[in-house]
Order: sequence, then C-alpha cells, then structure tokens
Amino acid sequence: VTRPPRRAVIEIICVGTELLDGHPDAHRAALALRLGAAGMRLSRQTILPDDEGALAGAVSAALRRCDALILCGGLGPTFDDLTREAVARALGRDLVFSPRLYAGIRRKFARLATRLPRENRRQAFLVRGAAPLPNRAGSAPGQIIFLPRPKELPQLVALLPGPPREMAPMLDDELMPRLRRIHGRGLHGARLDLHLCGIAESAADERLQPLIRQAGPELDFTILSGPGRVDFHVFARCASSRRARGLIARCRSQAMRLVGEHVYGEGATTLESAVGQRLRRRRLSLAVAESCTAGLLAGRLTSAPGSSAYFRGGILAYHDAVKRDLLGVKPATLARHGAVSAACAREMAAGARRAADADVGVSVTGIAGPTGGTAAKPVGLVFAAIAGPGDAVAVDRWVFPGDREVVRQRAVAAVLRRLWTGLRP
Amino acid sequence: VTRPPRRAVIEIICVGTELLDGHPDAHRAALALRLGAAGMRLSRQTILPDDEGALAGAVSAALRRCDALILCGGLGPTFDDLTREAVARALGRDLVFSPRLYAGIRRKFARLATRLPRENRRQAFLVRGAAPLPNRAGSAPGQIIFLPRPKELPQLVALLPGPPREMAPMLDDELMPRLRRIHGRGLHGARLDLHLCGIAESAADERLQPLIRQAGPELDFTILSGPGRVDFHVFARCASSRRARGLIARCRSQAMRLVGEHVYGEGATTLESAVGQRLRRRRLSLAVAESCTAGLLAGRLTSAPGSSAYFRGGILAYHDAVKRDLLGVKPATLARHGAVSAACAREMAAGARRAADADVGVSVTGIAGPTGGTAAKPVGLVFAAIAGPGDAVAVDRWVFPGDREVVRQRAVAAVLRRLWTGLRP
Repeated sequence: VTRPPRRAVIEIICVGTELLDGHPDAHRAALALRLGAAGMRLSRQTILPDDEGALAGAVSAALRRCDALILCGGLGPTFDDLTREAVARALGRDLVFSPRLYAGIRRKFARLATRLPRENRRQAFLVRGAAPLPNRAGSAPGQIIFLPRPKELPQLVALLPGPPREMAPMLDDELMPRLRRIHGRGLHGARLDLHLCGIAESAADERLQPLIRQAGPELDFTILSGPGRVDFHVFARCASSRRARGLIARCRSQAMRLVGEHVYGEGATTLESAVGQRLRRRRLSLAVAESCTAGLLAGRLTSAPGSSAYFRGGILAYHDAVKRDLLGVKPATLARHGAVSAACAREMAAGARRAADADVGVSVTGIAGPTGGTAAKPVGLVFAAIAGPGDAVAVDRWVFPGDREVVRQRAVAAVLRRLWTGLRP
Repeated sequence: VTRPPRRAVIEIICVGTELLDGHPDAHRAALALRLGAAGMRLSRQTILPDDEGALAGAVSAALRRCDALILCGGLGPTFDDLTREAVARALGRDLVFSPRLYAGIRRKFARLATRLPRENRRQAFLVRGAAPLPNRAGSAPGQIIFLPRPKELPQLVALLPGPPREMAPMLDDELMPRLRRIHGRGLHGARLDLHLCGIAESAADERLQPLIRQAGPELDFTILSGPGRVDFHVFARCASSRRARGLIARCRSQAMRLVGEHVYGEGATTLESAVGQRLRRRRLSLAVAESCTAGLLAGRLTSAPGSSAYFRGGILAYHDAVKRDLLGVKPATLARHGAVSAACAREMAAGARRAADADVGVSVTGIAGPTGGTAAKPVGLVFAAIAGPGDAVAVDRWVFPGDREVVRQRAVAAVLRRLWTGLRP
C-alpha cells in the first residue's frame, strides 16, 4: 500500500455579523461533507463580522498557514458585503469592474422582470487576477484566485456566496473539481453515508464500535444525529481509488451486519424517498389525514421527485368538523374518545383512504401545544394510524418531548419510520 | 449623552475535530444570546481540531486582539482533550495538579457509583494562576484566568467544557457575571428586529440608507435575506438603558416611514403568524387547497400557536381526481386549461372554502419539477388563488427559479405574502 500524499491544509472563513449574533451556519457542514468525499479535511473555520479590517487580517493570517482558503458570504450587493474589498486588501490588489459580469447580472434581473438596483453593480467587481465562478441560483458571482508559490502547488483562494442554495451548487460544480485537481491529486476518497432510524445515536455508536475501532490514517468515522434519524459516515482516503472503494465496500457490509435492520437508505436517500420506493415497488397508492401536523407529513412525502406516482393527496382535518364532514369520523367517536385518540386516528386513516381512493391511508392526530394539554392527554401526545393495504390496520401512540414545532417534526419522522417499517416487502 | 465605554472585544474558540467534520456547534448561538442581552457582542469564532499546536497558536493570536477569550471543549479526560495544555503553552505557564479538584471529581464518580477511570486525573490540572469554575452537570471543571494589562482592564481567559448542557449553566452562573462586572460595566443593550416581505434585500438596503447612515458607536445595523423575507436588525449599545430604548424607538419609527408597508412583524413574529393576526382581527376562518406544495402552506400556517382559532383545514389535491372529487374542480376546466392554470386555481380555492366551511379559501397549483414542465408551462410555474372574504377573488401567477424544494418554498412564501397583503384591514 502506497502512503497517501501530505494532507492539504484547507480553511474556511464565514463572513456575516448575523452569524456572530447567533444565526446558524450551514457552510462548515456542507464543505466538510464534500472534502471528506474527496479524501480531504477542513483544518479551521473562522467566523467574522462584516468588518473589512478584521476580515483582511484573517485572510492574511490564513494564507500564511493554508493551501486553500474558502470564504463564504459578504458577496451581496449591500454596504456590509465586504469580502471582495477585504481579499483585495489582504492580497495588495485592487478591484476591477467587469462589464461582462455586470451584463450577466443585468440579464438575470431582466429575466425576473425586476428592476436592477444600483447597489448590485458592486457584484460585478473582481479582485484583480480572479476568475469569476458562475452562480446558477443567485445574482452574486463567485471568484477564484490562484497564488503561485515557489516549489509548492499554488495556493487557492475562493470567494463563495453566503446563501446555502447558491453556495452548494458552486461548491459542487466549480470549486471542488479545481480543489481536487490541485490539492487532492494522488488522493482518492470514497465515502459511505448510511441513514438509520429507530435507533438512538449512543446505541448506534455502541453497536458500530467493532467498525469504528478500525479508524486510522485511511479511515475516518462520524456518527451524526438529526431529527428522527442517525447518520453514519465513513470516509476513506487512500493512494488508489480501488483501495478506497474496497475499504468502503468492506465497511458497508460490516455496518449492515451490525445495524442493518435500522438502515433505511444510503447517500441522498431520505426517509420519505425510502417510503416512496417501497410504495412504488408494491404498486400502492397513499393518502393522508393530518390534524396536528397539518400538511407537514404530506409536504415531506411529496418532496421526493416523482411522488405523484404513489401520493394521491389527503385531508387536513384541523377542525373537528372537517374530521367529521370530510373524513367521516363518527360524532360518537369524537364525543367519547376525543379527536386525539386511537379510535379517531383509525377512522381518520380509513377516511383518507376512502376519500382519496388510495390503497393505504395514514393519519396523525395529537396535541402539539403549547396549550391544549391535560393530565390525561399531555402536550406531545400523538396518535397515528395506517389503514391498508387490504385489511391491515396499525395504530401507534407516542408522547414527544419538546416545543410545538419539535413535537410536529418528531411526529412526522415517527410516522414516516412507521410507514417504512410497515411497508417492508 | 455619556459616550458608552469602548466595546469589549470578545472571541470564542471551539475545539473539536468532530466540529470540522460537520457536527453542529451550539456554543456560538448560546454565547451570542447572552452577550446581546448584556449589551456586548461576539467579535470572532474560531473552530479548531484537537491539535495542541494549532490551538496554542490561535490562543496567542486571539490574546493580541481581544479583551476576553472563551474556549469551549477539550476539557475531557481523554488523550485528545488538549485545551488545558494549549492555553498553558500559549501563556508560558505550566499545569498544576490540584488535589482539591481531584477530590471533587472523585466524589462525583462515587455518587454515580462509577469507577473513576485513571484518565480523569487529567481534569484536576489547572493552568498556573487559574481559578476553577464548578461544573454542575459533568466532571470537567472550567477554569478562569485574569491577565493584568497596564492601564487597561484585565484580560479574561475562560476554559469551558464542550457538552452544551455543561457549558450553558457554567456560562450563566460563573462566566457571564464576571464578564459583565469587568468588561460590561456601564453597558446597556436594546435591539429591534423588523421582518419585511415583498421587497428585495437590495431594495430594502437602498430605502433604509438614511437610517443605516447613522451607524456609529451606539448603533449597528444588519440586513439579512431569508427565504421569502428580509430581516432588518438594529442593535443599540449605550451608557444608559433609557437611552438605548430611546434610540431603538427612534429607529423603529424612522424604519416604518421608510419601508413600513413591507413590515409584517417584529421580534418573534413570522409571516404565518402575521397572517394569523389579520385573520383573527377580522374574525375570518381559512381553508387551503394545495397541489404542488402538498401541505407545506398549511404546515406553515399551523406552526403559529393558536392557529386553530382561524385555520379550519383543507384538501391536498395532488392527483387530479382529488381536485375533481373533493374540491369540485370541473372536468371541463381540467381538460381545457389543465390543473396548472388560473381557472383551476380559482375553482380549487372556492372548493376548499366550501368543503371546509371557511370564510377564505386559498389554493396553490404549479409545476415544482424536476419533470412535468413544457414550453408553455415551464417548471416553476405556479398559480395561486384567494377566494373570499365575500365575493373577492384574486389570482396570481409566478414563475419561480430553483429546484423542486426551492420552487415549493418560494410558492408558499409568495402565497403567505399575498394573504397578508390581501387581508390588510
């Protein structure tokens, strides 16, 4: 086995006063995932306010340490977008107006039939020597600069826009290929992303230990817990791509032996797309009846492209009259058991199935809070039922901790898990 | 007016290789919240791996810039917990074993009836000159060091544990009182958070310039764009709390003069809760008919606590048969104009209103993609209709750029904006 080359030092600077006021940052995670897949790793993140002096100082300091510096944010049109200026200052260069970039920005605004504000002209300035990176999802072009170094690979400086939906495609299409070519040469990465549900992060960690203990210079492991799921990531970083792929294949089969029954998918598979795959394979259609989640379940089910192949629609039965009139829930059920009950959930699921003419009906009814809870039916109490295929009926009851939104999201995740399990071929 | 004292420069360093692999960081938000309430602000965050050299270098660099440095993480018992060592090295001090601290750690383990691993002895070492900070929720004591400076207030260096449930109480009980006493003396904070819709970030910036130009030692401004909205933040930091509140009140009335018609709320108000307020004030109930957004609109409308006062429910008409059977859309409309048309949107809104017995019905139908688009009806084309109150009917047509999820989210934001405008008292 050949030893992989020196690991490149890669830093990210995120710019935005709002980040230091507590706004969430999505960039570190987005970059870390992509670097890992390419056999690279992030060495440092710095978060700075919209302050040209502090930013220029941090850029200079980073350039004394790293092989690649990625700046995110501060490319917008407004007075406090100062990344262009700060990088130019740190490099001792000036900013050059690009009529071609400006024409591109003008075209984007014309397509949206929006007046181009004078401020957006600032986005057409490039640090001297920089090449623009096209922005498919917004107005701010990115920039990339290569700084030659004696006896070393050139240093790379990239300026990327702050909004995650603009930054991510630019990272994938523009920056990562260049970064791999220059600083990832001779490095071969492969990765495995397994998504699990119905298991706690600590339990997954414990069961995966025989695999995790094999971490070393060629293999890294991470367990991450998200809402209603646990992700297990394996990064291989080898001198040949054959070896990297081989290691990943071995890790996959070992992980499947250890936690396989909880793995609903790999890579970009979501729990809702895993449910969709099972529905499609079994040629079943689905309808929903949602009360406390009021559309969140259907919203997730239909986020999978092509979901119209199995999703028929449903009823949002927030008010009890709607449960009665559109879902056929019996007034006696509501009177005797209340809307948050196993009986009501069962009738709602059957009603959704009938109303939307589907093979399977799924319902959710609960108390999301903050008010409406009682000693017998506390905030967080949720019932869900699955009616069909055929005569099958399953009812679940949970009590979720957390505030209103957390309860609703956990309920959706739990119902999706239940659907996935229930539809097992 | 007394000038407020110089703003203290406060930095946070978070330590942990897992953070650079993409694990979420809760410390910046936790600290920012507490600093803001005390009229202080975070100047920089640095995230570093478990690497003593890099960490010691970052501590030295930070101490050349700041008044207070807060380190989080790396106080655990294992080989890769190196914050104590790194701070000692940066300050040119050694680590001193504290028998008293060790006795405390031993007592904690005894209480848990757990054997004390030998590794935990490391947690009883203090940087020479540091005072220990008690940890109510875990084994790692924190540490605090005051570095005297000629003619200036002493520099403060704090070492806090990484787990948020250990870090947060130590922040509240131990660090914040000391930080306020030393670097926050005579400081009073107040803030304004205005939320706008129906205006682009750059246009808001342009119109708010007369206000933004007043930025100075007492006032900071930030404009931030989120999905379908723009936020305008003002931070006041004054020598008296009366003056801070007065400045914020003046900024509020000036902002309302400049962009008032776009301001849907303040503070924790969301667009959906602003819509809810208008419905509640006018005593109107609402029902939805969603096709391409399939529940996302209702999901947002019901995220506001108390939404059951005006939200009745609705129909998710993903499949055309559901549009016909449950919403009463005419087969002729579907045949002649298609499901994505102004005519269909109009009938869907009327149908939702009728089916759920509501005062106002709102519908969304569109092509979210990735497939299903044609030259005449491209991906991103969305129609929305609002039927009611009374005989009023409004229909909108948009073409949104972006992928499936972005189109759906933009459609929801646009419909909420339209509802908010349409329900103007």
